[in-house]
Amino acid sequence: MSGSPGIDDIRDAAQQISGQAVRTPLLENDTLNERLGGRVLIKPECLQRTGSFKFRGAYNRLSRIADADRHKGVVAFSSGNHAQGVALAAKLLGIPATIVMPSDAPAIKVEGVGRMGGNIVSYDRATGDREAISQELVEESGAVLVPSYDDPHIIAGQGTAGLEIADDLDALGVTPDQLVCCTGGGGLIAGTGMAVRDRFPDCALWAAEPEGFDDHGRSLAAGERVENPRRAGSIQDAIITPTPGRLTFPINREQLTGGVTASDADTLDVIAFIWKHLKLVAEPGGATAFATLLNGQVATRDKVTVVLITGGNVDPVIFRQALDRL
Amino acid sequence: MSGSPGIDDIRDAAQQISGQAVRTPLLENDTLNERLGGRVLIKPECLQRTGSFKFRGAYNRLSRIADADRHKGVVAFSSGNHAQGVALAAKLLGIPATIVMPSDAPAIKVEGVGRMGGNIVSYDRATGDREAISQELVEESGAVLVPSYDDPHIIAGQGTAGLEIADDLDALGVTPDQLVCCTGGGGLIAGTGMAVRDRFPDCALWAAEPEGFDDHGRSLAAGERVENPRRAGSIQDAIITPTPGRLTFPINREQLTGGVTASDADTLDVIAFIWKHLKLVAEPGGATAFATLLNGQVATRDKVTVVLITGGNVDPVIFRQALDRL
Repeated sequence: MSGSPGIDDIRDAAQQISGQAVRTPLLENDTLNERLGGRVLIKPECLQRTGSFKFRGAYNRLSRIADADRHKGVVAFSSGNHAQGVALAAKLLGIPATIVMPSDAPAIKVEGVGRMGGNIVSYDRATGDREAISQELVEESGAVLVPSYDDPHIIAGQGTAGLEIADDLDALGVTPDQLVCCTGGGGLIAGTGMAVRDRFPDCALWAAEPEGFDDHGRSLAAGERVENPRRAGSIQDAIITPTPGRLTFPINREQLTGGVTASDADTLDVIAFIWKHLKLVAEPGGATAFATLLNGQVATRDKVTVVLITGGNVDPVIFRQALDRL
Repeated sequence: MSGSPGIDDIRDAAQQISGQAVRTPLLENDTLNERLGGRVLIKPECLQRTGSFKFRGAYNRLSRIADADRHKGVVAFSSGNHAQGVALAAKLLGIPATIVMPSDAPAIKVEGVGRMGGNIVSYDRATGDREAISQELVEESGAVLVPSYDDPHIIAGQGTAGLEIADDLDALGVTPDQLVCCTGGGGLIAGTGMAVRDRFPDCALWAAEPEGFDDHGRSLAAGERVENPRRAGSIQDAIITPTPGRLTFPINREQLTGGVTASDADTLDVIAFIWKHLKLVAEPGGATAFATLLNGQVATRDKVTVVLITGGNVDPVIFRQALDRL
């Protein structure tokens, strides 16, 4: 597949990852519904293999590599969740994986990649160019570069989360008013939004981003891709990207309503809430969307809102800070 | 229904709680499987409404109370998880609930009961008689006493977790060798064991208990109900009961293979493991069964093992102690 993926590609991806990815449920919490005065349905992708949704797209992409090319390996750059998704998919498919990770990536993510047998190459997030480093590795080895969002199989793979959401909403007999999703490069919300709106065309989509890293929100308002002023400086590391993706943005410009934001403190509060009431472990950049419900950026009263918890790979020191806020 | 419940009562309970209880998934973890050299399938009942499986039985029981009797209310005694299950089921059904709780119950459980509108009566676990206190409340009000395990509707309700496990195993095409379940009064393992063995008759069942509170293990060995020497003194508060139930023990004597135990330290280690690798929040007495896999009491090599995480209502101070062990 080349070019922009469609709903049939997402259905095809669902077949491809079936039996490999976790079919995560749609959860609901009484305390949350009461507090927000609406109905919130939660998709806990922290329960996905490797602790984030990224395994979906990675397995879908890697399983399309021709047998004859698999020995050359794959290369990916990522702060950690895509890295782990690629490392596990590679291991399951018998493909060598090299992962380019920033030196400040959370230890739990670096450790996860190592546990899955990935070969790690470090770089400095402020000064290094991860794309250049990856490109060099690819040229040396003939490996396949696996982008974290700008790839049709990746977008379609992440979209399988949206198919599951749509199926579960159907089973509940519920029509969603809106869906809020943590957004870095925009692959998950592109695929998931497409799958949910295929079934529920009136469902609004909100990209949730870290305060100060709202490239999607500003790009959607401007109608073109704009960059963030900074490259680092938030604990929501999973969704710090310079700018919306080349392939994802045209999809998202078409289907998204707008952007919303949460501060780092908001995400710590909501990690504690999720721990206490939902019994789930969220990481800061996996809790951003949830935080935009509790900080009031997304209006939830008398509405049906779907929210994704996109990852749970959090270092204990950050998690303790969240518990301290209870 | 009176007397001992059967598989049809469990199926009937599944109908009764459908749309009210969370249909929890069956999860699997690569790191865990590798470490244990077998395949482990995890039923995360910490994701159930009120944070433990207890809502299943409570809703099944309370929904059977005749309309004309509902205004008289219900009374339950519990260290916290059954209390919350009853309080929420009562709220949903419009029934007043009074809960008799030990004064040393975890704050998070007391708070949960209060949030759901339950009226709390405290007693001292070492000197008070919760059955006598409850009986007095029932005689005053005409309320229905809701036992935490010795009731056929409660056992059948808890058994719905086992039906879901059996359905998911079927869908995976997997035959379980054994199932390990945290055991207090024995209601969950009685119902769940019955449902799983109805589909997989050769599945062994293990009751997991706190070290020093192994009344089931010793009762199974003796062929009759024996008591624990102590009533308190473990952080695994959810499954500290004096002795196996009158109604549950005949069922469990028939179907269980034996008992296994975990120390408090084992459960703290496993809470940290579950946090790190499964992104779930377990409480000590909800992690006991899982701990008996990691401490080696249950042999898992080359076997398919089903394990239940039965609750996640843990106070932050205990949870921090678990994280400190990472």
